[in-house]
Amino acid sequence: MIKINGIAASAGIAIARAFILEHSEYSTQQRAIENPESEITRLDAALDQSRIELEAIKSRTFKELGEKKAEIFESHLLILNDPELINPIKDKITEESVNAEFALHEIASQFIEMFENMKSAYLQERAADMRDVTKRILKHLLGITELSLTEISEETIVIAEDLTPSDTAQLNRNYVKGFATNTGGRTSHSAIMARSLEIPAVVGTQNITTQLKQGDIVIVDGLQGEVLVNPTEETIAEYRSKQEQHNRQVAEWKKLRDQNTLSKDGMHVELAANIGTPGDVIGVLDNGGEGVGLYRTEFLYMGRDKLPSEEVQYNAYKAVLEKMEGKPVVVRTLDIGGDKELPYMDLPKEMNPFLGFRAIRLCLDQQDIFRVQLRALLRASVYGNLRIMFPMIATLNEFREAKAVLLDEKEKLQAANIAVSEDIQLGIMVEIPSTAVLADQFAKEVDFFSIGTNDLIQYTMAADRMNERVSYLYQPYNPAILRLVKMVIDAAHHEGRWVGMCGEMAGDATAIPLLLGLGLDEFSMSASSILPARSQISKLNASEMKELAGKALNLGTAEEVVALVHAIQS
Amino acid sequence: MIKINGIAASAGIAIARAFILEHSEYSTQQRAIENPESEITRLDAALDQSRIELEAIKSRTFKELGEKKAEIFESHLLILNDPELINPIKDKITEESVNAEFALHEIASQFIEMFENMKSAYLQERAADMRDVTKRILKHLLGITELSLTEISEETIVIAEDLTPSDTAQLNRNYVKGFATNTGGRTSHSAIMARSLEIPAVVGTQNITTQLKQGDIVIVDGLQGEVLVNPTEETIAEYRSKQEQHNRQVAEWKKLRDQNTLSKDGMHVELAANIGTPGDVIGVLDNGGEGVGLYRTEFLYMGRDKLPSEEVQYNAYKAVLEKMEGKPVVVRTLDIGGDKELPYMDLPKEMNPFLGFRAIRLCLDQQDIFRVQLRALLRASVYGNLRIMFPMIATLNEFREAKAVLLDEKEKLQAANIAVSEDIQLGIMVEIPSTAVLADQFAKEVDFFSIGTNDLIQYTMAADRMNERVSYLYQPYNPAILRLVKMVIDAAHHEGRWVGMCGEMAGDATAIPLLLGLGLDEFSMSASSILPARSQISKLNASEMKELAGKALNLGTAEEVVALVHAIQS
Repeated sequence: MIKINGIAASAGIAIARAFILEHSEYSTQQRAIENPESEITRLDAALDQSRIELEAIKSRTFKELGEKKAEIFESHLLILNDPELINPIKDKITEESVNAEFALHEIASQFIEMFENMKSAYLQERAADMRDVTKRILKHLLGITELSLTEISEETIVIAEDLTPSDTAQLNRNYVKGFATNTGGRTSHSAIMARSLEIPAVVGTQNITTQLKQGDIVIVDGLQGEVLVNPTEETIAEYRSKQEQHNRQVAEWKKLRDQNTLSKDGMHVELAANIGTPGDVIGVLDNGGEGVGLYRTEFLYMGRDKLPSEEVQYNAYKAVLEKMEGKPVVVRTLDIGGDKELPYMDLPKEMNPFLGFRAIRLCLDQQDIFRVQLRALLRASVYGNLRIMFPMIATLNEFREAKAVLLDEKEKLQAANIAVSEDIQLGIMVEIPSTAVLADQFAKEVDFFSIGTNDLIQYTMAADRMNERVSYLYQPYNPAILRLVKMVIDAAHHEGRWVGMCGEMAGDATAIPLLLGLGLDEFSMSASSILPARSQISKLNASEMKELAGKALNLGTAEEVVALVHAIQS
Repeated sequence: MIKINGIAASAGIAIARAFILEHSEYSTQQRAIENPESEITRLDAALDQSRIELEAIKSRTFKELGEKKAEIFESHLLILNDPELINPIKDKITEESVNAEFALHEIASQFIEMFENMKSAYLQERAADMRDVTKRILKHLLGITELSLTEISEETIVIAEDLTPSDTAQLNRNYVKGFATNTGGRTSHSAIMARSLEIPAVVGTQNITTQLKQGDIVIVDGLQGEVLVNPTEETIAEYRSKQEQHNRQVAEWKKLRDQNTLSKDGMHVELAANIGTPGDVIGVLDNGGEGVGLYRTEFLYMGRDKLPSEEVQYNAYKAVLEKMEGKPVVVRTLDIGGDKELPYMDLPKEMNPFLGFRAIRLCLDQQDIFRVQLRALLRASVYGNLRIMFPMIATLNEFREAKAVLLDEKEKLQAANIAVSEDIQLGIMVEIPSTAVLADQFAKEVDFFSIGTNDLIQYTMAADRMNERVSYLYQPYNPAILRLVKMVIDAAHHEGRWVGMCGEMAGDATAIPLLLGLGLDEFSMSASSILPARSQISKLNASEMKELAGKALNLGTAEEVVALVHAIQS
């Protein structure tokens, strides 16, 4: 047995076999070919292999997880056998003397685009199926033997260098019981996704991919940040017991699901969730979320080869609003750039991307992209309680400009007799120090603030949160950060506005007493943190926390603040 | 005639012939050779060519600039002819069968190191001469035909992609009348150096190096940010007249040189200068500087192939302190990393260097480097009025740790009976938002603050000041920045401490009324800005400026602040 240390990224314990994820390149470049007939033979062979593979997965899934779960593979087989897809590919090979990979990609892309632009959510999902099937055929055409995430059809711990947002979007919660990665920290995408999917995860292990082999038995301890490889029977038994204990605790929390969030002395705050896709809403409701405090729309823009259409976006926003049934949904407009690149946008390389051309800066410059998103949001607004916020606002003028673009699109829609809600609250992320310092001026013009602590902390401390050499400076409890949070809350309340927080800090057990004391109105966090937070808040007196926060604001260091909070917790 | 637009980086007008600077690689890598005799013949030929070249430069300099200026080349000839240098090189070639470049570099490096560690400033300067001569011989050995900055011996406008700190250190003010570069902005190193050398300069022209040829007549208009190539006689006459007008204005300012800096209503502030080398002190005194507000010690670490010894540093610090004759000298400890790389230190590449491992973060981690600098400073402290400040302080613990290292070195020196001043003030740069926000806590422990606006603005606005796509966010007049400045000043005054500012903002005519109103005690700027600033302050009522600053703090945008200040100036 070996023990590998990492960063505890998502709570819980998982025990299963390792699935080591590797990435190969799926090249679909055009090549001229001499013999179209032999190219078609290649395609047919790949189709046969895909068919055999899918049949096997389908029957295994049927046996292990039942008919409903196996249906997805039945639809994949239908696509694979559909002459409306296959014949045009063969025609293209013959008529244009091109290679099978290219012909497949070209024809399938047309179908995918068509499905994506359909109004029905059901048909939109066919686009995802079509993508999976295309990839599977390509894999066989190219002779790639790698295992892919969509392949997973038994209980598994995914082991990877890192998981991209599109990888995590493919994870099937039924099979993937946990994961462990080489890179990443508590606030990396993979960690955030793990919490949102409620899968135990350990990240930042440096080299776990080289320390085990496909199929090894693995325990992921997302409570301690440890991974055990090929544990003894005794260890497995020990961890099963820990797992049960954790699950009991989770069951306790679940009882709070339909309750209001009240402090011991009766102060109400709102606990909301951060989500990335419409699929995440289930987790929000399961965990008793009172709203969505941050809907990260970037995921809509990722894992594809061009910008999502207005229709694709409209359907996603509408789905979230409808599923939330009138509870507030705060949608953040596109925050692309920085560490979040889009291959099809060709943004210039920057020396300091975190201080660069991203989010609202990019949207105000490339308004064609921005306006599509705003139209989709405005059209969806009639299906629920929509709130819109702009990311990375540094100056009042940026907010005014973004608001003017929104109002312009709203007028155009209304002129075309398209319904738009009249009650859309309009706010900003407070994640840049200048905006926190000038919050009183902003409060006169916005409906709400949402404090984005991940960025606010890194800018305020001038320390890249992804850079391990300066990670000691990523200090949520530094009194300077607490003072900025206080400035924002006081400024907002003075103008009768509300303040949320959607950074990692909002769900942190050490931060919660301080934030309650500072008067934060809405806490938005990973869905899985909501119930523990509700339980914690129910045991705190808001009036005492106000006093505690007052003391913390006048301390000199983060260490002193932590000691102060821990003193009341022990 | 063509006109090239750029950024006005240093005031004044210069007219001279273009000198286009190109950089070649001077490789001294070791190679085994078969015939040492022919290698020695190669060396002798290079020595002869260097000799002929130096004789020519010497006689031209003698004719044009007189005997004194020609002396330097006489010493270069003496080095070139010195058997104590040449014989060991030839021996090395013969005995070790190595190439001449390698043997020359090895032997010369020993001499350079020896000279650098001498106590006498005179002998230390021999190290620089030895470097120049070595480079000249190498140039001939390698057959490099480029023109180098040390070559310049007539009035010249230097045209370059960019000027590195080591390039600017080589600039001879007698010959280099101005410069223009492709890259850079008002706060790039080359711009700062131009102002410190009082040479007109235009930077950020994008492509000036491709728009003219060696020897073209060029007008650099550092007032408007324009470069004119091959102007007509008429245009030259017009610019000569502008040049005279500017020079008259400068002469007016010079009359204020020995006066105190007093506002119209009699409030005194201190005007100090930012310097990079001991040679800059002349400019400080010539411009009536009341102190050195920022001595950037990085230049000592640049343009060499290893860390500077304690002796090299001690001599530099002592020279500055002595030349300043008891006036305060604020030395900033090493601020390396970020955009300032040292080739011999092999720091890892970072994704966001401005938010990375630099300055005090690096010094606290690599204390061997830090302690050498602190010992050199402590030993030099008895020669003047030394103040030490640490850069990039983000937390109180960093300051405490750095102070402890300083006190430890002080005790060790005193135990060894080495004299150290007891009156060294110890302060910090305030250039990270967290430190500004927490200034009241810092004020209890430091002797002074110096606000570094260049970095403070870029972190507060989350905008890389070198990135053109977000340069609109580099806003010194943003009310958020003014509020942070006020927080720092109020916190310091409450504890009886003083506050300086050493960013570009301190010498900016629009910022000065506001800073005076906020109560700033010391303004540190390019030496060439001191007299215009003194003239400006003498016309302002401090009490009125306090009112002005109060209004500015409650505005919403930088544009409104600028309009407010301009209203009182017009």
